[in-house]
Amino acid sequence: MENQKVQIFDTTLRDGEQVPGCKLNKEQKLIIAQHLDELGVDVIEAGFPVSSPGDFESVQSIAKIVKNATVCALTRAVKNDIEIAAKALKYAKNPRIHTGIGTSDSHMKYKFNASKEEIIERAVNAVTYAKTFVDDVEFYAEDAGRTDNDFLAEVCSEVIKAGATVLNIPDTTGYCLPEEYGAKMKYLSENVVGIEKAILSCHCHNDLGLATANSIAGVINGARQVECTINGIGERAGNTSLEEVVMILRQHPTLGLDTHINSRLLNEISHLVSDSMGMIVQPNKAIVGANAFAHSSGIHQDGVIKNRETYEIINPADVGVNESSIILTARSGRAALAYRAKKIGYELTKLQLDVVYREFLKVADRKKEVIDDDVHFIIETSKIGILA
Amino acid sequence: MENQKVQIFDTTLRDGEQVPGCKLNKEQKLIIAQHLDELGVDVIEAGFPVSSPGDFESVQSIAKIVKNATVCALTRAVKNDIEIAAKALKYAKNPRIHTGIGTSDSHMKYKFNASKEEIIERAVNAVTYAKTFVDDVEFYAEDAGRTDNDFLAEVCSEVIKAGATVLNIPDTTGYCLPEEYGAKMKYLSENVVGIEKAILSCHCHNDLGLATANSIAGVINGARQVECTINGIGERAGNTSLEEVVMILRQHPTLGLDTHINSRLLNEISHLVSDSMGMIVQPNKAIVGANAFAHSSGIHQDGVIKNRETYEIINPADVGVNESSIILTARSGRAALAYRAKKIGYELTKLQLDVVYREFLKVADRKKEVIDDDVHFIIETSKIGILA
Repeated sequence: MENQKVQIFDTTLRDGEQVPGCKLNKEQKLIIAQHLDELGVDVIEAGFPVSSPGDFESVQSIAKIVKNATVCALTRAVKNDIEIAAKALKYAKNPRIHTGIGTSDSHMKYKFNASKEEIIERAVNAVTYAKTFVDDVEFYAEDAGRTDNDFLAEVCSEVIKAGATVLNIPDTTGYCLPEEYGAKMKYLSENVVGIEKAILSCHCHNDLGLATANSIAGVINGARQVECTINGIGERAGNTSLEEVVMILRQHPTLGLDTHINSRLLNEISHLVSDSMGMIVQPNKAIVGANAFAHSSGIHQDGVIKNRETYEIINPADVGVNESSIILTARSGRAALAYRAKKIGYELTKLQLDVVYREFLKVADRKKEVIDDDVHFIIETSKIGILA
Repeated sequence: MENQKVQIFDTTLRDGEQVPGCKLNKEQKLIIAQHLDELGVDVIEAGFPVSSPGDFESVQSIAKIVKNATVCALTRAVKNDIEIAAKALKYAKNPRIHTGIGTSDSHMKYKFNASKEEIIERAVNAVTYAKTFVDDVEFYAEDAGRTDNDFLAEVCSEVIKAGATVLNIPDTTGYCLPEEYGAKMKYLSENVVGIEKAILSCHCHNDLGLATANSIAGVINGARQVECTINGIGERAGNTSLEEVVMILRQHPTLGLDTHINSRLLNEISHLVSDSMGMIVQPNKAIVGANAFAHSSGIHQDGVIKNRETYEIINPADVGVNESSIILTARSGRAALAYRAKKIGYELTKLQLDVVYREFLKVADRKKEVIDDDVHFIIETSKIGILA
């Protein structure tokens, strides 16, 4: 059976860009948008046009240059927002308006001071109005993660009637556990009237470190779009990491789900976004961190040298990284030292290796990392009668 | 009903320290160990004593100073490793030896070239030998994530007979999905003979960004120990983040699980580990990232100003952070601007705010972040007849 496709909705330029101190200028946004299009994302959320004249211009320019992806603009459930978004999207080949409103008790009470009926009315009006400009209208039920499933299904059923093509179910505060978020998606798949006319979308935040797991639980339970950002950037602890979702689906073919992403471009776009925004990617970031394919412990190095798959599930080349690195530290074993020594021209016997390894450990206990020059020096001064 | 306790096994100083280029010296390790003890972790894995003389000394010194936590040392299933670990732990109040061997097909074939029977024999011998030195022996079944559940249950049953008190089930390559890892724990809870005499432990790696979710799935399905590191550091994409596991359990009281961790110390120890190792924590890291409690989008700021819980599930003070920040950018709305203006002494009418906001957006489209001085300047030059 062929894999079912999960749409990748990239919001690096909208939700991702809401990072304090990391604003991108228009040129930077255009370059990132082009790279996202080449990467193979299905939807690029380009911005929130009503928020500022600069953002309007960026959305407009992105709409003009994107060749394949749908270009999407965010609005509140407010007429003026929707008009301005439609204007910004005028030149897009495939435009989408993304409108919505908060549906949790906390949002209805504190943000809108509105009843359930009023919230549904505003939601339906917003979708109906957006449909007068574009065919493709995505509706978000803000704080859906904390919204009662019954009411959520009711809102979704009503906006589908009004023409919504995508239902975004955001865990806005990053509160849900994977089981819970998955169960929510399952409930909606089974209880929203007219669900066959729309697709469900996961939009998860990472406040508890669960954004990726929640999104995967979502697609396992029926969602067919994931909203995410490069490097998982975004407000607070960020959004779901695009690269993690893509590689999880690829590493788990039994799920029967895949995306259109060209994973070999992941490493490059990760650097582009990090450099453009000045948002550092920590070395231990999954898939795109500098250490993601670096091995330093002796036990692991020994295994990887014998067979890469002992400790690595992803071939680094599949995400655009040249090769796994074997880094020599005080935690490295004889196998790694012999491997490195051989690479720089020394074939050591078992006895010679024993002597060299003892000297190596003395150096390694003093230094963070033992480099090739150190290995040369150790071997040459170990009095084992070897010269490269 | 009182919460059941999940033990926190911190391996920042062992698995965490296996980060290329981030070796800690003995003094740094002692300081971190003291902080971990104050934080309330149940077990501190202090090192792998046989790996180098420096590591031996560190484990020995940590064993002497730790007051409350169990101090644990890693070994392979090798006699000499176990003897040296026992020696390093001699002065520990509560010593634990952590020994084990690979159990997956890949590990048995490529690393050990041994049959299932031989692997079980080596495992049992290692545990039996470790028991001659200490009461508390933890067994790890390396690459358990990719080990057949039947065989894994068999290995676990045998090492319990030999006296193992803790069964560590590592997803060594970070391959498992939460459902899968949870199902593995459930299977072991139900099929290991003598399981009532030992506890199951989660040890997850973050190669696909799922370490935290897998650990949570593990404890939901019967595990009662989580192995983790501060900031999720460790080889490749790192280990499970201690701070994430602790706060997930605390934010989800319906799970009925909790730890002994004093969460108010999390932010401080995160900085200590990051500074000592030179391992940067990305701003969008959950719980301990610099932006974890920073809001910059207008919609969110408006909500947080009205009621913190609209967008924040964790009170920043609970993890040792002073307060959430409202950061002014081009994505900020009128509410955030008015809030900040008021903080620096200006009460603006609605009409004045409209004028100031237009000027604010012009500045914000040019700058990454609008600071108090900018707000002063904008208001004073807006010709709205206001002076602070």
